[in-house]
Amino acid sequence: LHEGDQSAVRDFLAGQELADIAGYVEELNVGDDLAAMRLLPLHDQAELIAYLRPSSQMEIATRMPRRELAALMTAMSHDERADLFKQLSDEAQEAILPALTKAEREDLRRLASYAEWTVGSVMTSDYATLSPDMTPTQALEALRSQALEAETVYTAYIVDQSRHLLGVLELRDILMARPRQHVGDIMDREPIFVRADAEQEEAAKLVARYDLIALPVLDGNDQLVGIVTADDAMDVHEEEVTEDFHKGSTIGPIETSVSEATIAVLYKARIFWLVLLVFGNIFSGAGIAAFEETIAAHLSLLFFLPLLIASGGNAGAQSATLMVRALATGDVRPSDFGRLLGREVLIALALGLTMAVAVSAIGVWRGGPAIALVVAVSMIIIVLAGALIGMCLPFIFAKINRDPAAASGPLVTSMADVLGVLTYFTIAAALLDV
Amino acid sequence: LHEGDQSAVRDFLAGQELADIAGYVEELNVGDDLAAMRLLPLHDQAELIAYLRPSSQMEIATRMPRRELAALMTAMSHDERADLFKQLSDEAQEAILPALTKAEREDLRRLASYAEWTVGSVMTSDYATLSPDMTPTQALEALRSQALEAETVYTAYIVDQSRHLLGVLELRDILMARPRQHVGDIMDREPIFVRADAEQEEAAKLVARYDLIALPVLDGNDQLVGIVTADDAMDVHEEEVTEDFHKGSTIGPIETSVSEATIAVLYKARIFWLVLLVFGNIFSGAGIAAFEETIAAHLSLLFFLPLLIASGGNAGAQSATLMVRALATGDVRPSDFGRLLGREVLIALALGLTMAVAVSAIGVWRGGPAIALVVAVSMIIIVLAGALIGMCLPFIFAKINRDPAAASGPLVTSMADVLGVLTYFTIAAALLDV
Repeated sequence: LHEGDQSAVRDFLAGQELADIAGYVEELNVGDDLAAMRLLPLHDQAELIAYLRPSSQMEIATRMPRRELAALMTAMSHDERADLFKQLSDEAQEAILPALTKAEREDLRRLASYAEWTVGSVMTSDYATLSPDMTPTQALEALRSQALEAETVYTAYIVDQSRHLLGVLELRDILMARPRQHVGDIMDREPIFVRADAEQEEAAKLVARYDLIALPVLDGNDQLVGIVTADDAMDVHEEEVTEDFHKGSTIGPIETSVSEATIAVLYKARIFWLVLLVFGNIFSGAGIAAFEETIAAHLSLLFFLPLLIASGGNAGAQSATLMVRALATGDVRPSDFGRLLGREVLIALALGLTMAVAVSAIGVWRGGPAIALVVAVSMIIIVLAGALIGMCLPFIFAKINRDPAAASGPLVTSMADVLGVLTYFTIAAALLDV
Repeated sequence: LHEGDQSAVRDFLAGQELADIAGYVEELNVGDDLAAMRLLPLHDQAELIAYLRPSSQMEIATRMPRRELAALMTAMSHDERADLFKQLSDEAQEAILPALTKAEREDLRRLASYAEWTVGSVMTSDYATLSPDMTPTQALEALRSQALEAETVYTAYIVDQSRHLLGVLELRDILMARPRQHVGDIMDREPIFVRADAEQEEAAKLVARYDLIALPVLDGNDQLVGIVTADDAMDVHEEEVTEDFHKGSTIGPIETSVSEATIAVLYKARIFWLVLLVFGNIFSGAGIAAFEETIAAHLSLLFFLPLLIASGGNAGAQSATLMVRALATGDVRPSDFGRLLGREVLIALALGLTMAVAVSAIGVWRGGPAIALVVAVSMIIIVLAGALIGMCLPFIFAKINRDPAAASGPLVTSMADVLGVLTYFTIAAALLDV
């Protein structure tokens, strides 16, 4: 690039996918990244910038001359440019607006106005429309004229004068239609749709459930205001999955990517549950303190304490994870609880018995047969209790309309810890102090 | 249905999406489900059965007369029917084959021959093809004639006589082409593709990265053998995400859905790590046993033991989850380790200090200032150590080419437990026994 050998670079870039070029651009130095982008045609630049990380987008956008940025934003897909616009400083926003057409300004302001977690914030307004009275040939011609601008032409939306959604039609059905038919005859009159103020997760679920290419978005007046494409729905879904992973380890919501999050953001997302669980574990400590006499008389009991309480927690974390994920994918429904509970009891008993056998051998070696018996019996009960807590908690959360994912590993482990301590020493006191 | 009021049911079904009808059919009694299905046109039946759970598919298929099942399978998309075929008993397979055409039999055998986790096992062979010398009009006509059979017509594949892949073309580009151009001029000559024997996850990643509608699949001779559509890639991705969730709680691979898994399957998936972690926790027990004298002299130390070791484990589980997920989505790369390590140290120190303050108040109350000091210092070190173990383990696993997801919560917790016990009692022995 420095050598001025631009045509070689240009040839190289022509053979590459934009998603890969984005990777190269991010690794270039400040200045070079902009120079490399400028070697591409405007339309590719507009697509490329959408593949960059938000922080890289911002960096490049703020270094671009105002006119160039306006041209780029005009070529960008409507949802991507709204996302970029939202990130710009108030100053930069004000600078860019006059360089855009009135229609673009309004579109930008409208898309940028939806709250962060809503369908409106992830939809795009560059969809293809048809009229109900068009013939298949006319419809194809209409889609051809919109193909450069529209995010997808594989699903088209049929609207009346005031943009009320009349129906949806796939391009495949237009291809297969007979010449005399009209769009209005073959369109789906009861299409799946979503409201602009619904949660974005809702759109992702509908797209996945009905295998849609794009989902129409209506406002409160039943007017079509945008579409959510399958790949944007996929991105939303990925965000939700990440949130579920984080919840599973008591990590609160993080707005930015983990890689770009600041220390303060990550601290805030983590501290709340950590401190809360400290207080939860006071009960375990109090449990131990209550049995100080038993412990003082049989200090060898302490050897098995970490092992027993960890086993209950681990079995519980397994059960919770299985149920949280199965509930999230729809594999299991809240109404399946009864059927699954019986199965879980049997599995947990089998697990507990196996582990009791493993641990009683160590028990005999470390503390003699009496201790071995205490440890083995405790193990069965603790694993059973842990597994049942882990299995029931997600269903209870679902029942009280909380996210089952909040039944996280650490929460289950903490509850299993308390129960484990009490079970172990109660049994020990009963069997050893007689 | 029993009342014989079939036309009312038929009218009701006509207004419903097939994905929803599948839900109703699954809740019907044996016999009724088949009767309800038969009210739909064959093409819809073929699509409907793909939405049913594997066990429901099997139940219905085994109850269908052989000829009816053959007709249904002929109408099904090629990948779905291969999946159904694989589930049938050897007897049922032999019974159905003669009722199919030779081409269908061969297609079925070939698709069913790929190993479970490969791209070949999720691809479909009903893709649309074009010749390089076609004009846009001819190409549209060709796609029209394939629209009923093909899984998608929005991406078409250009092959030579021996099915070598020459290029890929989107229907959108055919629409926008000039009348004099030929398919060979406008097709993408270096399309993204995947090999049939690659891991299925590979296909899902490529589809997501390049926002593809469908991904072509080549065999070892560069011949086109199938495509993976975006919605099938999404299903593969969902399976992988579920596996990652399970690994995060030390649950081994489960072939079927959790809801349908047997007790034996779930037992096997869970027992290995549970027993392994029991032995890991012996080290914690041995650590406690090594400090029996210190503990006997200061039994109040035990009160804080669960709280301290749980805190290290919880902080570690948080760090591990953040890193495992960020590595899985590509948000963080293994090369980012150095940059993120510094940030993690600072976050962990901030977390540890906050928790030390919280816990030292309890320390003064339960055991006096000396114990409070021991507990506070231990907390900072334990949280720091836990967080660093949780952060480093996924990177180490990635470095030695293991799945970072194996750096699960319970594994991190167990390691943090050992370190926590040793840290706590070492500090206690040093500060209290002087």
